[in-house]
Amino acid sequence: MKDFDISKEGNYKVLSSEYLLREGPWMTVRRDCVELPDGRRNPAYYVLEYPDWVNVIAITKDGLFVMEKQYRHGLGISEYELCAGVIEEGEEPLAAAQRELMEETGYGGGEWREMMTLCANPSSQNNLSHCFLAIGVEKMGDQHLDPTEAIEPVLMSVDDVRELLQGGYCKQALMTAPLWRYFAENHLI
Amino acid sequence: MKDFDISKEGNYKVLSSEYLLREGPWMTVRRDCVELPDGRRNPAYYVLEYPDWVNVIAITKDGLFVMEKQYRHGLGISEYELCAGVIEEGEEPLAAAQRELMEETGYGGGEWREMMTLCANPSSQNNLSHCFLAIGVEKMGDQHLDPTEAIEPVLMSVDDVRELLQGGYCKQALMTAPLWRYFAENHLI
Repeated sequence: MKDFDISKEGNYKVLSSEYLLREGPWMTVRRDCVELPDGRRNPAYYVLEYPDWVNVIAITKDGLFVMEKQYRHGLGISEYELCAGVIEEGEEPLAAAQRELMEETGYGGGEWREMMTLCANPSSQNNLSHCFLAIGVEKMGDQHLDPTEAIEPVLMSVDDVRELLQGGYCKQALMTAPLWRYFAENHLI
Repeated sequence: MKDFDISKEGNYKVLSSEYLLREGPWMTVRRDCVELPDGRRNPAYYVLEYPDWVNVIAITKDGLFVMEKQYRHGLGISEYELCAGVIEEGEEPLAAAQRELMEETGYGGGEWREMMTLCANPSSQNNLSHCFLAIGVEKMGDQHLDPTEAIEPVLMSVDDVRELLQGGYCKQALMTAPLWRYFAENHLI
């Protein structure tokens, strides 16, 4: 494996920084004045601050994918997506993903591993999204949603999920990426 | 192909809407008070408004991927990524992707097609990202960057890009998703 880790290179110097909005975990906006390594300045580099997120490709003992049907008000569309959520303060990513799957779908158990770590936009936001794979989950309880959530769990076959991906019906990149990786690594395309 | 298009289902009713920030294409924040189909209310649903974006998997006649090394201030890391940018007003997505590739790397030509349309976060932002595949591009000019851009074009072999993906060195989900799709559909894993 070559070393593609260039993460420590090229940092910008922050000359000043102010918060434009501080409305909690869903909308915190910072504006930095930054100096590039060659001395040029960007007076308004906007950064969205969020807690880290999780999502999970959960597959039952029968090989069905535990997906969710949900309205997404940003784009103004409904989609089939993976279970996803926010890591609470002090919580480990794995525990957060297991809690979200149980709350949103009632499914749990199985063998879990972290597949990959992504970011919705490393330019404009400061948080990571941890993508898990859970094999052999089963229905263990009822759904327990937050007061403003409306999520319908849907079990889908691997053929259904392939059609969902190939047809472009799942637009959420943080979920599309691990799903395509799963399909690539398991030679399902 | 089944019909997974549920995009018209479940829309929330917007009871009121106000702009909290209007700082142009890089940071516009709206707060909607919405009513769910079952009558529950969410008094603060935040939406980020952006123009649509593009990115491109560009591959030379010799089979090398035209990647970019760039510092990303949101996460505070440098990464190898695809060429990407913002669609200008009145511009077609394909023209925007071709313009961005030429400006950021000096590469052009080849056969282009749109691979997929994604969104960084359909819950919290209103824009799409159009992902293109360009086969057979070649160096046709010099790089022309915006005043605050610092981008280093890097040619990578398919083996390098596979290691980049498998090693988790590219975290940008909007780019990781089409790259994994390309590797899946061309059986490169």
